Amino acid sequence: MTDEITVIPGDGIGQEVIPAAVEVLDSLEIDFEFHEADAGDHVEAETGEALPEETYELAASTDATLFGAAGETAADVILPLRTAVDSFVNVRPAKAYPGVDALRPETDLVFLRENTEGVYSGHEDRLSDDLSTLTRVVTSSASEQLAEFACEFVDEGNYDGFHVAHKANVMRETDGRFRDTVVSVADERGVETEEVLMDAFATHVCLDPTQFDVVVCPNLAGDVLSDLAAGLVGGLGMLPSANIGPDRGLFEPVHGSAPDIAGEGVANPAATIVSAAMMLEYLGHDEEGLRVRDAVEGVLEDGPRTPDLGGDASTEDVTNAIVDRL
Amino acid sequence: MTDEITVIPGDGIGQEVIPAAVEVLDSLEIDFEFHEADAGDHVEAETGEALPEETYELAASTDATLFGAAGETAADVILPLRTAVDSFVNVRPAKAYPGVDALRPETDLVFLRENTEGVYSGHEDRLSDDLSTLTRVVTSSASEQLAEFACEFVDEGNYDGFHVAHKANVMRETDGRFRDTVVSVADERGVETEEVLMDAFATHVCLDPTQFDVVVCPNLAGDVLSDLAAGLVGGLGMLPSANIGPDRGLFEPVHGSAPDIAGEGVANPAATIVSAAMMLEYLGHDEEGLRVRDAVEGVLEDGPRTPDLGGDASTEDVTNAIVDRL
Ligand SMILES: CC(C)[C@H](C(=O)O)[C@@H](O)C(=O)O
Ligand SMILES: CC(C)[C@H](C(=O)O)[C@@H](O)C(=O)O
Repeated sequence: MTDEITVIPGDGIGQEVIPAAVEVLDSLEIDFEFHEADAGDHVEAETGEALPEETYELAASTDATLFGAAGETAADVILPLRTAVDSFVNVRPAKAYPGVDALRPETDLVFLRENTEGVYSGHEDRLSDDLSTLTRVVTSSASEQLAEFACEFVDEGNYDGFHVAHKANVMRETDGRFRDTVVSVADERGVETEEVLMDAFATHVCLDPTQFDVVVCPNLAGDVLSDLAAGLVGGLGMLPSANIGPDRGLFEPVHGSAPDIAGEGVANPAATIVSAAMMLEYLGHDEEGLRVRDAVEGVLEDGPRTPDLGGDASTEDVTNAIVDRL
Repeated sequence: MTDEITVIPGDGIGQEVIPAAVEVLDSLEIDFEFHEADAGDHVEAETGEALPEETYELAASTDATLFGAAGETAADVILPLRTAVDSFVNVRPAKAYPGVDALRPETDLVFLRENTEGVYSGHEDRLSDDLSTLTRVVTSSASEQLAEFACEFVDEGNYDGFHVAHKANVMRETDGRFRDTVVSVADERGVETEEVLMDAFATHVCLDPTQFDVVVCPNLAGDVLSDLAAGLVGGLGMLPSANIGPDRGLFEPVHGSAPDIAGEGVANPAATIVSAAMMLEYLGHDEEGLRVRDAVEGVLEDGPRTPDLGGDASTEDVTNAIVDRL
């Protein structure tokens, strides 16, 4: 069966790292049909909207979408795309790779971020000249779906259990609901959980990241804590991510469009190529996913390396080296 | 004029570090009147409420309150105490001290955390069996008051300006109001500001903390980001804080009650004693505040040191050494 893939390079280095990932995918013996689509600042400048209807529809109907980056319009592109694939979890591994200068090289974490609600469901009101409010939403159903995913993730990955990060000492009703639901699903499934306040997590992950493996969090907590973990493994440049829905997924590097280096052909394609490996695994091509991961790790270790990792190789050099290893 | 000070040791090591700080204060030539008050888990166990009315009233009427720590009841004690002193800003310096093993020894930051609203104003509702909401509140008036404090803080400290951390790309109306108000007050005052998304801050502060000096944030952002900074300077054990209101203040170490070491007499009193130095400065005793800071820094550098810093001194040894240096 052909896998239908929407490919959205977006802005800046998205235009460089997405073709690199497609080259890697093309070199595998898998029958893909790629659908090119557009989004981002440059589309908004031309048409007035950052995410064209056609792009949304493609993401909402193909098996998977590979997305690069968007600039100023990032929120207008990424958040609707996450909705298009109906993704309830954002899987964000943060692992220090060999050969990459990391503040905490022993870091090896996976964040499972709730991907639909919290402050992101975005009911905001301007109640007066002085006062604005935002309605933060937490449902048991979304928390349950996330927890079920987390339990399977832990089983498949042979983890001991997972941490639940939250701020239920302040957000007693909403994060309380989140925590209680997640913990009770895990209890039923016989998966061990440990609670941690999100602020305490921020301290402890710096002091000793090996205390944590899988961290389940509400939406904004997952955003901030996974970016913190990026700082421990050497920056956003290395982080892949997967937005998983019941029928389709959206795969994207965590980094942005990097306008400072865009167009120079030196962007590090690793995060995007590992995101493509996550896509392969999601689509059932586990063996190929693993081969891609191994090839990326090998190249990170032995070079060639892009300038962000202290080398002077181009995106193309690195991509070719990865393809050669496959 | 006598300074009226409410002293609340609270739970766990609060019972050890607060007497240490009082000893330091007592050794100065300042006319204090101390009012002992109680709060925390042990009070709740006895009386059913963690924060007795008398304690609240004392905090709300004296010039300053020095608070240690509370255990499980932390939120029930600290949040009302912040209200009692009507504090609109929580000042949280995060600085790596000499002699303290820090992940990023070059860290020297001050967070100015909005202290009254955001998700902390806590309007939560259980709308159905499945759904709970929290109303996050942002007002221009609170943002303005914080910004005015920040501008004075920057002027007095000879900083170049300040960063505003927020998540206005998602919370457009509420954090948008926060950001716009803070930036416009600073513009009027001729103080330079730079914006940073709170997630991006989490990455960048790990990669290079020297990019930042003063960071102004909404309430929860300030909570999490300052705890992150604690991880960079060697843990919460070292962080003091000041909750500043128009007429009174509340001074507390950022660390908790540390039940694992409570009662052993080995708690590190540094964060509490520096919090007391912040209190001295707030009360106009700048010279004494500086002397206390210098004494603490000297002892951190030369010892004696408590076990958390690799030494084997007691709280009393360290306190005596600090008093000797005054
Ligand atoms: C661009 C922004 C809306 C997005 C988020 O907050 O989720 C980004 O920070 C991310 O983490 O993918
Ligand atoms: C105990 C808790 C309510 C408190 C907060 O969230 O403000 C604490 O984490 C802090 O930072 O002082």
